[in-house]
Amino acid sequence: MDAINIDVNLLKEDTIIALATPSGIGAISVIRISGPDSFDVADSIFKGKIKIADSLSHTIHYGNIFDNSGSLIDDVLISVFRTPNSYTGEDSIEISTHGSPFIVKKIIELLLEKNVRMAEPGEFTKRAFLNGRIDLTQAEAVIDIINSRTEASLRGARNQLDGLLSAKVNDLRSLLINSSSYVELELDFAEEDIELIGHDELLGRIDKIIFELDALLSTYSFGRIVRDGVNVALVGKPNVGKSSLLNYILKESRAIVSHIPGTTRDVIREEVSIDGILFRLFDTAGIRISNDEIEKEGVLRSRAVVKDADVVLFINDVEQGIDGDLLEELFLITDKEKIVTVINKIDLKTNLDVKANIEVSAKTGEGMDILFKKLKMAALGTTNYSEKSAIVSNLRHYNCLKKAKASLQNAKNSLFNKFSGEFIAVDLRNAEGNLGEIIGAITSDDILNNIFTKFCIGK
Amino acid sequence: MDAINIDVNLLKEDTIIALATPSGIGAISVIRISGPDSFDVADSIFKGKIKIADSLSHTIHYGNIFDNSGSLIDDVLISVFRTPNSYTGEDSIEISTHGSPFIVKKIIELLLEKNVRMAEPGEFTKRAFLNGRIDLTQAEAVIDIINSRTEASLRGARNQLDGLLSAKVNDLRSLLINSSSYVELELDFAEEDIELIGHDELLGRIDKIIFELDALLSTYSFGRIVRDGVNVALVGKPNVGKSSLLNYILKESRAIVSHIPGTTRDVIREEVSIDGILFRLFDTAGIRISNDEIEKEGVLRSRAVVKDADVVLFINDVEQGIDGDLLEELFLITDKEKIVTVINKIDLKTNLDVKANIEVSAKTGEGMDILFKKLKMAALGTTNYSEKSAIVSNLRHYNCLKKAKASLQNAKNSLFNKFSGEFIAVDLRNAEGNLGEIIGAITSDDILNNIFTKFCIGK
Repeated sequence: MDAINIDVNLLKEDTIIALATPSGIGAISVIRISGPDSFDVADSIFKGKIKIADSLSHTIHYGNIFDNSGSLIDDVLISVFRTPNSYTGEDSIEISTHGSPFIVKKIIELLLEKNVRMAEPGEFTKRAFLNGRIDLTQAEAVIDIINSRTEASLRGARNQLDGLLSAKVNDLRSLLINSSSYVELELDFAEEDIELIGHDELLGRIDKIIFELDALLSTYSFGRIVRDGVNVALVGKPNVGKSSLLNYILKESRAIVSHIPGTTRDVIREEVSIDGILFRLFDTAGIRISNDEIEKEGVLRSRAVVKDADVVLFINDVEQGIDGDLLEELFLITDKEKIVTVINKIDLKTNLDVKANIEVSAKTGEGMDILFKKLKMAALGTTNYSEKSAIVSNLRHYNCLKKAKASLQNAKNSLFNKFSGEFIAVDLRNAEGNLGEIIGAITSDDILNNIFTKFCIGK
Repeated sequence: MDAINIDVNLLKEDTIIALATPSGIGAISVIRISGPDSFDVADSIFKGKIKIADSLSHTIHYGNIFDNSGSLIDDVLISVFRTPNSYTGEDSIEISTHGSPFIVKKIIELLLEKNVRMAEPGEFTKRAFLNGRIDLTQAEAVIDIINSRTEASLRGARNQLDGLLSAKVNDLRSLLINSSSYVELELDFAEEDIELIGHDELLGRIDKIIFELDALLSTYSFGRIVRDGVNVALVGKPNVGKSSLLNYILKESRAIVSHIPGTTRDVIREEVSIDGILFRLFDTAGIRISNDEIEKEGVLRSRAVVKDADVVLFINDVEQGIDGDLLEELFLITDKEKIVTVINKIDLKTNLDVKANIEVSAKTGEGMDILFKKLKMAALGTTNYSEKSAIVSNLRHYNCLKKAKASLQNAKNSLFNKFSGEFIAVDLRNAEGNLGEIIGAITSDDILNNIFTKFCIGK
């Protein structure tokens, strides 16, 4: 009995607290508490019709919160969630207060004097993961959902939260576990020389898994764009109409996500959503190395923008034609295939004697639909991924998949070279471990901390 | 029957929607919906275990919200509040979503296509008032609670939300209604010359009410300070140690509420809480009229700050002594009793040959406790108001009380001058109306609009 009690106490988690709504003044603010003492600490400051500890799960209770001197701090609503039917899987409550940061601060300070501590970033979601409510890819999807700012990024994160990637990864893991079990079993009966799985059968399975991994890996460039958006650098000589082109895109997309005032003198950043995809537009200054100290600074910044861009819109006008020198310069900084050459001001001349990918007039709007299509294509490629299939959008997942593929290639080598089954078994187990890392079946404090510190406090 | 149906439809309110939590990214956001169609519109986009329309009040339901094309927008919790047990008194729900502004926007846009419209500022609280859940002073207290940033301002607003002012005003109204009823009844029996209430008795009652009104009116300077804070202007010649004094106050109070970066070159504003009272500190530049155009601008701003201040800290140092010229200048701008003369740097000399209200050293901290006390006294006076008594903190209430007092003084005049009872009855009714305006027993669209447009949307 004693031993059991001690174990329970060791396992017992702290009770944590945090503001769950954005900070600032509003109609209401919500304070979230989770852990074994949630109900008791609530009852120590709250007076309603019945005690929180006696309340049913998923019920709401009106009452007053008093400070230690008996002064009323606020009248509030408390929502009760009983284990395991809560976000974290633990007993938890949400206190809905008047939306004053001062009241929130008072209530949190009051509870920190009790058996409650401040939650770390993402700790509520981390507990949901540790309590088996969600796996690691789903926990990671939660922050992507919160940060989603466009249709596509929301759908991508939803896809992941709904477990499509997890399901796919688990299928592949099962296949690996099954295969490596055969190999390991053969090792146990090595002296009897029993073959439980044929060489060709095993090779076939490994190839199938590599094929599936490749398919997943190939979704990453799409997934990343969908999640993080597309960086577009606008490059061109003065007077080719860069600004009017930028303004046309902003106006036409009619969905300026945000206008970030230029922190630098030379690079302006605007974010727009075109067909649900986030495009970040950077208007650069010159990219030719200059000797003027002030200009030099701007040029360096502009070149960095071009280097980091997913798409470079190289803008020329119909009068001056394509600036070959500038294009050469671009080739030195970025990949050729990222450059989309545009001829602007086609309204000024009818007989074009220059050839560009795209010919537009930011004045009349001519050709702009083609430019938009080209922008999307340059960013996403031509592949169309279904909403119902697994998509990789997270670099961590991508790297785990690559490691799994490398492990399987090792296994193939061992097979070809007729190495002992031990080697093959280890490679298969490694691949399974790499996949397990994605969903958190295998994990470490480092991995978890790395993931959850990116969350806000309160989630 | 038909007539009744038509009436019901005319009375039927719209269903309104708004984000109730501060906008921005957070763990959760809450969308509030109130009105007769709340449950039906929720069911049109939400799929949970049971329908919202079939749910009990004060219960919480997990489920998914889908857009018109059947795509999942978010998994949410919906809290159900059935009339009359809701904030507004109407059927209402709260949708708790992932804290992404994009998701919030999508859900609100989706519902605006249904039988729902965007709430006006304060409309939820306005409905609570119109449905008799709270009176007008309590509705006004809600916004004061949300805006409260110090202990004292929260207590003041709480006092009002808890109905202490309303109770006092209602007592006085009852007394007035009772008295005017006697007077009016006497008028009905004028021919019989029946005296239902004696002249002295009526005069005594009126005097008693005026006495009570004076008591309430006298709380206003305290109530206003508690609610809005104290403006303190720091004035003094260069090098008297204004900045170090300001820094000492900021450091010592250990509760910088906010640092507002100077929008002007010359006036810095800092907010600190001293014993729960909000002090706004303005560090002024010179106040002597200058001919320099740029300085002139600064001088005008500084003089405006001194003029608006509740307390003027006139700072001198022990070496230069009190600057008589500057003091004369101050007398021209502000009231003598608002000026607190301070001698700084008393650590430099032991034998002071100047006399000031307060002698301090911002370096050693000597005398600073007395300065703090003086600041509080200058702001609040020496009266101590109990937390349990009614306090007037709102200019609208103050003006209504003054009007009520004036009406009662008219009634007294009519009594002294032996005017007909009609005049007295009208004055008493006016006074009762003035008081009724405070709690909203008598109101107009103008008054309501004026009050509720100060609210945020969602409250």
